[in-house]
Amino acid sequence: MKPLILSSPEPRSLEIIFTDSARERLFEKYRLVEVGQNEVAALPDSVLAEVRYVLGQPPIPAELLARMGSLRAVLNVESNLLPNMPYDLLFQRGIYTLTTGAVFAEPVAEIGLAFALSLLRDVVEGDQAFQAGRELWGFEGNQRARLLTGAKVGLIGFGDLGRAVNRVLEGFRVQVSAYDPWLPPSVLRDHRVTPAGLEEVLTGSDVVFCVASVTGENEGFLQARHFAMMRQGAAFILLSRAGVVDFDALIAAVGSGHILAASDVYPQEPLPLDHPVRKLKGFLRSAHRAGALDVAMKRMGDMVLEDMDLMDRGLTPLRCKRAERETAAKMRSKPVDKT
Amino acid sequence: MKPLILSSPEPRSLEIIFTDSARERLFEKYRLVEVGQNEVAALPDSVLAEVRYVLGQPPIPAELLARMGSLRAVLNVESNLLPNMPYDLLFQRGIYTLTTGAVFAEPVAEIGLAFALSLLRDVVEGDQAFQAGRELWGFEGNQRARLLTGAKVGLIGFGDLGRAVNRVLEGFRVQVSAYDPWLPPSVLRDHRVTPAGLEEVLTGSDVVFCVASVTGENEGFLQARHFAMMRQGAAFILLSRAGVVDFDALIAAVGSGHILAASDVYPQEPLPLDHPVRKLKGFLRSAHRAGALDVAMKRMGDMVLEDMDLMDRGLTPLRCKRAERETAAKMRSKPVDKT
Amino acid sequence: MKPLILSSPEPRSLEIIFTDSARERLFEKYRLVEVGQNEVAALPDSVLAEVRYVLGQPPIPAELLARMGSLRAVLNVESNLLPNMPYDLLFQRGIYTLTTGAVFAEPVAEIGLAFALSLLRDVVEGDQAFQAGRELWGFEGNQRARLLTGAKVGLIGFGDLGRAVNRVLEGFRVQVSAYDPWLPPSVLRDHRVTPAGLEEVLTGSDVVFCVASVTGENEGFLQARHFAMMRQGAAFILLSRAGVVDFDALIAAVGSGHILAASDVYPQEPLPLDHPVRKLKGFLRSAHRAGALDVAMKRMGDMVLEDMDLMDRGLTPLRCKRAERETAAKMRSKPVDKT
Amino acid sequence: MKPLILSSPEPRSLEIIFTDSARERLFEKYRLVEVGQNEVAALPDSVLAEVRYVLGQPPIPAELLARMGSLRAVLNVESNLLPNMPYDLLFQRGIYTLTTGAVFAEPVAEIGLAFALSLLRDVVEGDQAFQAGRELWGFEGNQRARLLTGAKVGLIGFGDLGRAVNRVLEGFRVQVSAYDPWLPPSVLRDHRVTPAGLEEVLTGSDVVFCVASVTGENEGFLQARHFAMMRQGAAFILLSRAGVVDFDALIAAVGSGHILAASDVYPQEPLPLDHPVRKLKGFLRSAHRAGALDVAMKRMGDMVLEDMDLMDRGLTPLRCKRAERETAAKMRSKPVDKT
Repeated sequence: MKPLILSSPEPRSLEIIFTDSARERLFEKYRLVEVGQNEVAALPDSVLAEVRYVLGQPPIPAELLARMGSLRAVLNVESNLLPNMPYDLLFQRGIYTLTTGAVFAEPVAEIGLAFALSLLRDVVEGDQAFQAGRELWGFEGNQRARLLTGAKVGLIGFGDLGRAVNRVLEGFRVQVSAYDPWLPPSVLRDHRVTPAGLEEVLTGSDVVFCVASVTGENEGFLQARHFAMMRQGAAFILLSRAGVVDFDALIAAVGSGHILAASDVYPQEPLPLDHPVRKLKGFLRSAHRAGALDVAMKRMGDMVLEDMDLMDRGLTPLRCKRAERETAAKMRSKPVDKT
Repeated sequence: MKPLILSSPEPRSLEIIFTDSARERLFEKYRLVEVGQNEVAALPDSVLAEVRYVLGQPPIPAELLARMGSLRAVLNVESNLLPNMPYDLLFQRGIYTLTTGAVFAEPVAEIGLAFALSLLRDVVEGDQAFQAGRELWGFEGNQRARLLTGAKVGLIGFGDLGRAVNRVLEGFRVQVSAYDPWLPPSVLRDHRVTPAGLEEVLTGSDVVFCVASVTGENEGFLQARHFAMMRQGAAFILLSRAGVVDFDALIAAVGSGHILAASDVYPQEPLPLDHPVRKLKGFLRSAHRAGALDVAMKRMGDMVLEDMDLMDRGLTPLRCKRAERETAAKMRSKPVDKT
Repeated sequence: MKPLILSSPEPRSLEIIFTDSARERLFEKYRLVEVGQNEVAALPDSVLAEVRYVLGQPPIPAELLARMGSLRAVLNVESNLLPNMPYDLLFQRGIYTLTTGAVFAEPVAEIGLAFALSLLRDVVEGDQAFQAGRELWGFEGNQRARLLTGAKVGLIGFGDLGRAVNRVLEGFRVQVSAYDPWLPPSVLRDHRVTPAGLEEVLTGSDVVFCVASVTGENEGFLQARHFAMMRQGAAFILLSRAGVVDFDALIAAVGSGHILAASDVYPQEPLPLDHPVRKLKGFLRSAHRAGALDVAMKRMGDMVLEDMDLMDRGLTPLRCKRAERETAAKMRSKPVDKT
Repeated sequence: MKPLILSSPEPRSLEIIFTDSARERLFEKYRLVEVGQNEVAALPDSVLAEVRYVLGQPPIPAELLARMGSLRAVLNVESNLLPNMPYDLLFQRGIYTLTTGAVFAEPVAEIGLAFALSLLRDVVEGDQAFQAGRELWGFEGNQRARLLTGAKVGLIGFGDLGRAVNRVLEGFRVQVSAYDPWLPPSVLRDHRVTPAGLEEVLTGSDVVFCVASVTGENEGFLQARHFAMMRQGAAFILLSRAGVVDFDALIAAVGSGHILAASDVYPQEPLPLDHPVRKLKGFLRSAHRAGALDVAMKRMGDMVLEDMDLMDRGLTPLRCKRAERETAAKMRSKPVDKT
């Protein structure tokens, strides 16, 4: 008898997160009950009692959870944790809540490096000038151009995304420092990154990647005074969530010519057509496209299959990220996530 | 008595190629006779007889060379070899011709990676659409987006520039193959690059970097049939010289939607205002700005100082690239070089 | 009021696991109650109620645990888990059991590489021959010598120790495959290691590092038939626990000349003076010294301090390894561990 | 008509330096005249006039050279340059002298790392004690043991061998400094090595690799005062030639317990049976076996084939090392080389 999965992956779908061959494996190894977010409670006790895995994050109030006596894990493929389950009970029962957001780290890091190199070398504005017939040739067009090789790079946050950024920088022999209050310094050093305070990272870097998640505690923590302490002409690359910066202050810092910036995220998405960042010089824009690649989505399915396989064999899941008692409640990114 | 340098670095200048402190060291260790390109022959025999190094590449016909009995090296800071010296006589006398073009490898490789990532992720056109208020958000805007990590990368040419490109790719875990008929396969393998034929490189790569120098033998060797054999949607990044490709064929291959491309070099520079590449979709343009950074120029001075120091001590120069008997005559890039 | 630590690190001591400065920090930030293993139960309720961390692994039966209402973590600095606590209750209450055995990975990996290189190049027997005046010079002395660079390396197990071995091999451009049934293949691939079955690892490798922990399920799983399937002349390096191999079979495989081997661990420790492995040619011996370096011990203290700091701040510990529900019960290494 | 090779590779042979398949290729592409070292002059003019390559280094006096009008290169497979050719004339005519000694770098570097790790961890003496039944277990046996990871490593010399040592150290995250008066500092920095003076290297390193060639200028340049300035307990690994050190002073420094050492080379080879280094504690001995591996010899043939192929095609050889005017005369290693 195959183990039972309760599948409710909205707003994603099985088609989005599984390749054809992975979906075949899924159906080969498991029975699936596919239901909408609000139809779970209506399932008969006999079905609920058998559910080993929940795929998605439908609302599961305590009384519903109590009926799911075989549950081993909630495989949350949306990467945010909605406050629609009693996480404490899950932890107590040893039921894992697993998230797949790590799939976005690689694509986001790659476009982050594209942003940084583009800003340092004026790639976007250079191309636009060329289209318009007002390009400057050679040396003359390079007055502000700088190398990344050997530069000082700062990371704000050193989770999956910070590590991925650090990895794509490997060929550049940069000196990387990182600020991450959730990590002990030795973890940073193991990655050959220098632990630093926020001010050090901001004042000492030629390029700053902001890759910190939003929590209840750090909303808008990067403000005018922080941008002011950055080096003249340094580049600020915002890759995680708009919520961690005072976006107007960022716009002002770029507008004044003090720094350059790129961003994939915005206080409102979609952004109003008259928003000043649309025409801002020295600012490189991307419409929340950094992570949402098909190839990333498909990796979610692979991760889910690998971790269910471990759990089926009585082992600890370790491919997905495990929600933790301490931080589950702190994560605040809005439900409209990457994708 | 300090050794004598004949300085004639046009079209560059001492100010361009030396930092202030390097220029100080230069004048501290050497006497300089600074002359225009055509004033060398007019120098008195007593001066010419003492010249240890020529800095630049003024015309030096055989009879002039015969008067320079102490000459050890011509330090060519322009990176092309003009046919204005009897190279055979230089080789015979053991006088080195040293070029400093390697300084461009790193900046060119960096912008090359910027081009590749921008094409794969639509960074430039994405920003333009955003400015115009017609951006697509998230997944929807990523229909053609692809990752570089794990991709197959092809290099056409594996000299200084090919190696620099290979280095900035380190963090991406790509599979790199290279075609370079001037190099034995084991040299490529030492750099963890797979030696391959030209067709293999073109048919098997998601991104192709063209970093081959122009010689008398390879002008226009990349033609319509070569672009046709590239993978649908692959990116062709032209970083060395326009002379190696049939530029109209490249434009056609991009225009038809078969491939994407970026280029820093053009058949004519500056390019006519009505040239079709200016508006071509899927093509990223840069106005011969890839190498001409101030920091690169300044490294020329450092290299020159290091190699003169070695030669002053009776050692072999090894910082600059040495012109070789076999290839000196083959190099054909036009005098208007990077910068 | 400083948080309270119940300190009972036997068989280690605070002096062994903390540097002077770390011990100072420990006493600066915490109050310590230092007791012997069997004195915990005798502590007054008022003390037990305040204990935030247990340092060591004294017996803590359920009724004792019930009296420790503030307990957040057991910091087990011995690296084995003794069955002297109700782990289920700990998991249920969200009390972490943290182990520090990862400190041994680096020293063990280093000596493991020393063993491998010594076997491939006959370093130990070569030196002994030299001492005895019967050394063979040059080419003649190298009949069995082989390079590690470019070789095929197999890892049995890919936990902390396997990863450390993989790291010290970085400079050798080896092809590494690994067998680890507790890990999904993608984790191996992320480390640029090829996932493989046990037979593949054994038959396809020039050097095999055995770095698997002993569990209730894998005792003696490497037997005569496994050594027989290894390549003629290959090297088997045993670094984890003698319990995973049939030691007599290993001795026989080396004695017959089929393979070379090195080991740091033995079925009995200390080993009887007349044990046949003592004189065995082709076998390199080390007396359980691979991990027990002072510098490794001192890192335990640092790890403990870093994780307590995270927990003090309401964050998840992540420096030490966390015991897991699924595997806590399976680990079987004997209490006399590294050190 | 195939090009003609004059083959006289003594003291090596074609069988030693070519694999079977490489030797097949050799005979497929070239005609060979195989002669003893002293039979060259006796060859008829018609043969000499056709010789394109000399394989080996038979004596070629000026008058003999004059008869070899088609000669392009002397492929010296012994790796020393004997003073038996008029090198000046060769340079003047643009005839390359190419040496294949680089093949030894990798095997020597590997055993060098084996020596270093063995000394730091007492592998050899530990095994001997174990054989004798007086081994110390665990922590007790590790009183002098140290890690290489994170240590400071010094290189004396940074040619092919120094670079190979630097490469095998990659996984250890060591800080490497190097002293090489023949190289400009920027070359070292390109390899992520810190340029340093000799004293700095000696006083600041935990492990010193001596990989400098002997020249007329540096014989015995490492003396008692140099070993005295090394750190207490540091390891000195001699890999290049005994001629660069005062060997008695090295023995004394180890004998006094100040440093540890390993050596592959000796002032006399073979070494007298009563030489004091044979029994010296803290000294690891190898009988000039570091480079002389069959696999290294066979690479010579591959290099020779690759460079002849380039020259056949009118290109510059670049696989073998080219003898240079400045240094050809300075190299002094004795004819009895590695192998």
